[in-house]
This record gives sequence, structure tokens and C-alpha cells, in this order.
Amino acid sequence: MNLKNARLAAFGSTRRAGIRPEDDLNLQALCKADTSVVTIFGKSWDFHVTDIIRTSLEENLNMIRDTIAFLKEKGKEVIFDAEHFFDGFMANRDYALECLRAAADAGASCLILCDTNGGMFPSDIYRIVKEVVEMFPFLIGIHCHNDGGMAVANSIMAIEAGACHVQGTINGIGERSGNANLCTIIPNLQLKKGYSCVPKEQMENLFVVSRTISELANLVPNERDPYVGRSAFAHKGGMHIDAIRKNPLSFEHIDPSLVGNERRILMSEVSGRSTILKRIQEVLPWADKNSPETQLIMDEMKRLEHEGYQFEGAETSFELLVRRVLKKDIKFFNVKDFRVLCEEHWQDDYSASAIIKVEVDGVEEISAAEGDGPVNALDKALRKALQIFYPQLDKMRLTDYKVRVLDTDKATAAKVRVHIESTDGQKVWGTVGVSTNIIEASWDALVDSIEYFLYQHHEKSEMKLEKTV
Amino acid sequence: MNLKNARLAAFGSTRRAGIRPEDDLNLQALCKADTSVVTIFGKSWDFHVTDIIRTSLEENLNMIRDTIAFLKEKGKEVIFDAEHFFDGFMANRDYALECLRAAADAGASCLILCDTNGGMFPSDIYRIVKEVVEMFPFLIGIHCHNDGGMAVANSIMAIEAGACHVQGTINGIGERSGNANLCTIIPNLQLKKGYSCVPKEQMENLFVVSRTISELANLVPNERDPYVGRSAFAHKGGMHIDAIRKNPLSFEHIDPSLVGNERRILMSEVSGRSTILKRIQEVLPWADKNSPETQLIMDEMKRLEHEGYQFEGAETSFELLVRRVLKKDIKFFNVKDFRVLCEEHWQDDYSASAIIKVEVDGVEEISAAEGDGPVNALDKALRKALQIFYPQLDKMRLTDYKVRVLDTDKATAAKVRVHIESTDGQKVWGTVGVSTNIIEASWDALVDSIEYFLYQHHEKSEMKLEKTV
Repeated sequence: MNLKNARLAAFGSTRRAGIRPEDDLNLQALCKADTSVVTIFGKSWDFHVTDIIRTSLEENLNMIRDTIAFLKEKGKEVIFDAEHFFDGFMANRDYALECLRAAADAGASCLILCDTNGGMFPSDIYRIVKEVVEMFPFLIGIHCHNDGGMAVANSIMAIEAGACHVQGTINGIGERSGNANLCTIIPNLQLKKGYSCVPKEQMENLFVVSRTISELANLVPNERDPYVGRSAFAHKGGMHIDAIRKNPLSFEHIDPSLVGNERRILMSEVSGRSTILKRIQEVLPWADKNSPETQLIMDEMKRLEHEGYQFEGAETSFELLVRRVLKKDIKFFNVKDFRVLCEEHWQDDYSASAIIKVEVDGVEEISAAEGDGPVNALDKALRKALQIFYPQLDKMRLTDYKVRVLDTDKATAAKVRVHIESTDGQKVWGTVGVSTNIIEASWDALVDSIEYFLYQHHEKSEMKLEKTV
Repeated sequence: MNLKNARLAAFGSTRRAGIRPEDDLNLQALCKADTSVVTIFGKSWDFHVTDIIRTSLEENLNMIRDTIAFLKEKGKEVIFDAEHFFDGFMANRDYALECLRAAADAGASCLILCDTNGGMFPSDIYRIVKEVVEMFPFLIGIHCHNDGGMAVANSIMAIEAGACHVQGTINGIGERSGNANLCTIIPNLQLKKGYSCVPKEQMENLFVVSRTISELANLVPNERDPYVGRSAFAHKGGMHIDAIRKNPLSFEHIDPSLVGNERRILMSEVSGRSTILKRIQEVLPWADKNSPETQLIMDEMKRLEHEGYQFEGAETSFELLVRRVLKKDIKFFNVKDFRVLCEEHWQDDYSASAIIKVEVDGVEEISAAEGDGPVNALDKALRKALQIFYPQLDKMRLTDYKVRVLDTDKATAAKVRVHIESTDGQKVWGTVGVSTNIIEASWDALVDSIEYFLYQHHEKSEMKLEKTV
């Protein structure tokens, strides 16, 4: 790999007690990793030395010294992570500092104070880091865990106390409650306090970086994450939205575009006429708040929201609703009928199948499919039939399927709301369906999703309506 | 509602500019809410007064004064939330303080400094709160948002600076990146710093409180949440686990049982054995951790959890699982086969029906039902057939039905978990089913629920097994 901005560090621990560094297999492996930097963690809490690795306090100091000296001799830059430093400092201040001294004397370029158990408080971090920085100027770094929910604040307090190196992870990925989240720390320091962490253009990639790492790690992004979550700049409720329109600073701590994120005005009856109007204008550019079309659409929207619809994250269903209300929709296909059958003939032998008949421009097509459950069977049968007419549908796939039971106390007769997210490889769109029948709700969301795709990918249509139409 | 420990506060804003409090419809509604406490938010950032609500600085002070005086006259305790206080303080310190003074003079019992936009830093919070506390001793509270990822730390810094009231939410639920998370703040203050927030026994309910609120709000719990997430005390990797075995303090900031959570040793058969054992003993009182029954049940449970089952809130399904694994279950009925049909013949004319055949003691019964969706049809058909044999089933009804999609990225082929809650008018019990087929998942939860009812209400059975059985 030819890294342009990053340097890779190999990570391991000090040598084992009672052996020479050159005989330690882990240290040999660290050298072989062929990185210019090696980060070594070592004990600095006396209790861990005596009770966990069960060696003498003096031998632990030797382990730190020997290990770092050995790696320096091999030409490595060495960063020393003082594990449990804060707990150690509070239990035995002198010994914790002796460990740092051993590492500094052996040539470590950076001494990292670790809150390994993650339970420290910001004011304690500030006080201790300040004291240590005075002893080891320009050498101190911070490494926080989030067990007390304060890893970001603790890292920042350490910086304010004079630390010059922060260890953290993208999205705070890490054991237990996670490590300090760099996607929060970097913009906090740079956008609020004037520290220079990354170039401005890279800061604008923060949202994408966060998403990409989640994707690679196969983790669901936390949409509430500061700066990079999809909810971080989402607004709902008339008063907030009205204020944001007058001046975004009124309810936003930064401009979302600085970190590559965007403002979301959530669609809802309470978000007020002006938000909905903006949406309507995306389809009907000439509409204003007094247009009869606007009133018609708002009435229909209110009726649907009352039924349990919610258009947040399902803006596509809303656009299609606008077309239908104005009778400007294109019928790409008609469903003549469908039938879904779920059977259990013998214990644990389930099956789900669907038969569907569609009609496009006077031509009928019937198809059938089996699936992992009734909705999947219906989905497969519908695509099978439609691909005869619209082969481009093979570019579209569903990426998300969510079910919410709306009135749980009605038990199995409850109404459900289904959200579907789809993609054609470039755009992502969301649709919604509501019914007491989960198959009907899924069906409505599915049909909206396919219709939208066809509007985008069919020569005879485009989404925006012409005034003359 | 007869609340034992909590007091409810009605929440609204100061009167609108230019009208009398008694003419303000919102204030009238707040009074009608009939709570002893009313919390009023008002502007304290001059920019918001002039640019957002667009009135004079003097009129805003009048709005604060009038509103609080009006509510005091009605016998209410009034808490004043100074919206955007910190931004206001930094922009125009004198005016922000004048707003607090107006509220205090009008009789507010508490002045809450709000970081409404959530972008403040812990050291600034500490400095400003300390200054304000000196002016208004014993009156100051804190209200933080999490846009900078520091809402918990900021709340704690405010407490350290002398604030005596914290506003937050369970699980940090709130707009954008959320409010300050009380499930983190409460144990931080009480278990680490000796503040007394809640009785010890209530602290041990924190985990359950957090889960219950997530469940009620139908939000997926964040398993990485400090203290109350399932990962908060999870350990993996030989070295950490070895250290935890020698002394849990080595890698845990607190004892998880203090907040009702538990240690999880991942990828290891010892995970939570004692917790599961406790459950097993409810059915098999003589079982101990070395019983072969315990091992059998744990293996089956692990297999099911891996499939997506979750037995919290579905203890009944777990009890039935124990009986089945030990082959001590009673077959109250056999389902010979069932068939569920969903059809759409004409646009918007949906139907869902089910046919089911059951057998009890050699006698077969077939029945059919229509319903509001396929699961409801199946539910009705099953009861209809079974009531011939078990007329007492008319006492049982379903009270809750929830669906969670487990792997949303598999779209309509995703696995779903169905939770059903039932009652016989006295007891309430929960059951669970998991499948890619929502009908199968619902069916499994439904059958468990009915079986459990029959164990309770049938002379030939009881739930607890006898050693001699």
C-alpha cells in the first residue's frame, strides 16, 4: 500500500517477564511487520503488575525499558501506551510516573496516557494531564475509552491541558462502549477551537469516511452520531424549522456541509406548510402556498398521516402521491390480481409462494415465485413479470426493509407501516406503505419503489411535471 | 396516574410577543394540564430575540416575567429553561444574565442553562456555570444536547461547578444527536462521585429501565451505550478475559450488577451461565450449573440466540424451550396443516383468510377465518378450532404484537423477530418467534402463547416440573 497521508503503526505489548526482547516472539513479529512506527503498550498501574501479570514492579520497568530500546535499535519510532495510566496515577502516583520516565529514557517519541477502563472524569483528566505535561513537555498523548460516556470530552480536556497526540477510532469503534470517536473529536477541535487537524477538503469528506468505515466493518451506522449521523442536522416541528429558515445558526452548532453532511427537514404535518410546499415544488415548480394543488396535496397527506403513513425517509412515496393527487401519474403497469399462499403441511415444513398477473399496454403476463416468506415471494413474482416489459429493472434492488407495528395493543389485527429502501446503484430512495395487512403494506411500498425507478429510467417520463402537462 | 417517585411537569414557552399571558392559548393549555410544575422555555440569546422571534430585547424580558408571574399566580411551581443560554452568554453576557434575573425575580424555582445547539465544550460550561451559580446560588440547572458528543460530560462539569438540577432523557432520546443521557449521568455521579441520585435498588433497575423505554418507543437499543448496553461489560480476547478472571476491576470501571447489567464473556461457554441457570431453576428447581440438563438447554438457547431469538420479555418461550429440550412438554394439540391466502383481485380489494386443521386426543377439527391481514386470520382460525376442545381459551387475549426486522439489508428476504404479549386477565406473558417468514415467526410466538395458557389453565398440567417426572 502506498499511503499518502497516513502512517501505519504495528501494535503490541512490552516483552514478557523474565525473557530477553530478542527472544520474544511477539516483538519479533512486530519488527517483521515492517512499519516505521511501533506502538507498545505496557503496565503503569501497580495493581496490574503485581496481580495480573504477576511480576515485580522493578521487572515491569525493565520490560518497558528493554522493549523500547530494542525497537529503537531496529530503527523504529516507538510510541508508548501507558495502559491504565490514570487508575495507576490515582493508586500509586510515583510508580505510574516512573513507568513514563522509563519509556522516555529508553527513547519513546510519545507517551500516551490511557484511560483503559474508560471511567475517568473530564476534570480529573485535565488535572492529571496538566501535571504530567509539565514533567514531559511535547511528549504526552491521550487514549480514552467511553465507559463513562465521556471519551470525546476527556480527549479534548487532555488537549486543553497540553497533550499533543490523540488516539481514537473512526465512529468510536472499540471494545465495550467504544474508543474515543475521531469523527467527533476532529471537527470539535478544528471547527470550534481553531486546531488544525486535517485539510479543509478532507474535513468535507468526514461524512463519507464515517459511512465507508461502517460499510467495511459491516456495522449499522449510528444515525444519531454527532456531525456524521443522518439525524445530526435533522429538524422537525414548525418552530425549529421556521427558525432554521430565518438563520441556520439558530438551531445548528455548525454548517453541516463543513463535514460533508446535510440538513434534513423532516416531512410531517407538524413541519408546516412551507416545508411541504418546498417538496411539492420539486414536482410542481410553479406551485405556491395558495395554489389549489397545494391544498389538495396537503389534505391527502394529512389523511394518510392520520392513517399511520410517515413520509420521513420515504420522500419518493410523497412525490408519487403528488402525481396521483394531481392525476399526473403514468401507469407503467396494472396489476390484474395477485395471490400469496403460505402453507404448513407437516410440522416445520413451511412454504410461501405468490402468483401475480400484470398488464402493460394491453399485454398480460402471469408469473409465480417462491420466497423466504410471503413478501419476498410477492416481490420476486412481481419483478419476474415486469422484467419482460422493463428489462432495466434488473439494475434495481431493495437495500432495506423495515416494519413498525403502529397500534401494538390491537395484537395481530394491528396496523403496520413498512418502509422500503431501494437503489439503482447510484441513487437511494425510500417508500412507505401502511395497512393492517403486512402483505398489503409491503406491496404498496414495493410498487411505489418500482414506479419511481421506472420514472427515472424510462424514456417516456421524467419526475418533474411540466406546467403545460 | 398515581406516580410514586416522579412529578410530571407541563412544558411550553413564554407567552407570545405583544399579548397578555391570560390571552395566550398555549399558556391556557399548560394550566389545564393540571400538573404542579410547569417548565417554561424562553429566549436568552439576543440574536434569537431580534432575528428569530423578532421582538425587542425589552419585550422578551417582559415575556419571561409575565409568563412566570402568571403561572405562579395559578399556584404552579415554575422552572425556567433559558434556551441557548451559553451561546447567549458568549454573545451578550449582560443580556443573558438579565433574562435569568427576570425569571428569578418573577419567582422561578430553578433557572436552567440550556446548551440548545449542543456544541459547547466542558471547560467553557464549567467556567460559565460557576460564574452564574455565584450570582444565583441553589437555583441553577443544566440542559445539554449532544451535538458535540459531550452532553454527559458537560452536564457533569455543570454539577461540579455548582448546578443542582440536571435535565436529560433516558437513553439520550432527543432531536438531532440527542439529549444528555440520564442512564450515563446517574451512575457516573452516584457510583463514581458519591452523589445520591436514586436509591440503590432503583440503580439496579437501570438496565431494565433503559430496555423498557427503548421497547416502548420501538427504538433499537444501542448496545454500546455505557452502563446499560449489552456490550458495556463484554470482554473478548484471551488477555482481557484472563485479567477479568483474576480481578474484574482490571478491565471494568464498575461492577455491572450495580446497574442491573451483567458481564459477558464473548465466544465462551461460560457466558452468563449463572443468569441462565437462574432461569432454568424456575422450571427445574434442582438443576445446578453442572447438571447435564443445564448444558443441553444452554446449547439450544445459544443456537436460537444465534438465529435471532431473544428471550427478554419472552420468558414464557424460554420456559417452553426448557420443557421441549427435556422432552417434558405436553402436547395439548397438534396442527395437521394450515394455509393462509392473501389475494388482491381488483385494485384495493384485499383479502386474507386462513384454513387450519388441528387434532386433540385423536379428534380432528378444521376451521377457517378471515382477518385483518394474514397473521390475524391465522390467529382467529386457530382459536376457533381449539375452543372446541379448550373452551377456557376465551379468557385469553393478545395484548401486544411487535415485529422487528433483524437483517434489514436483506430487504424482503430479511429475518424478522415477532414478540407477542398475552393475558388471561390476571397474568401477562410474552413469547417470541423468529423466521424469514413473518407468518411462521408469528405462528411460533402464537402457539407458544396458547400452550403456556393451557399449562396454566388445564387440570392435567402445571408449569413447574416435578423432580420425579
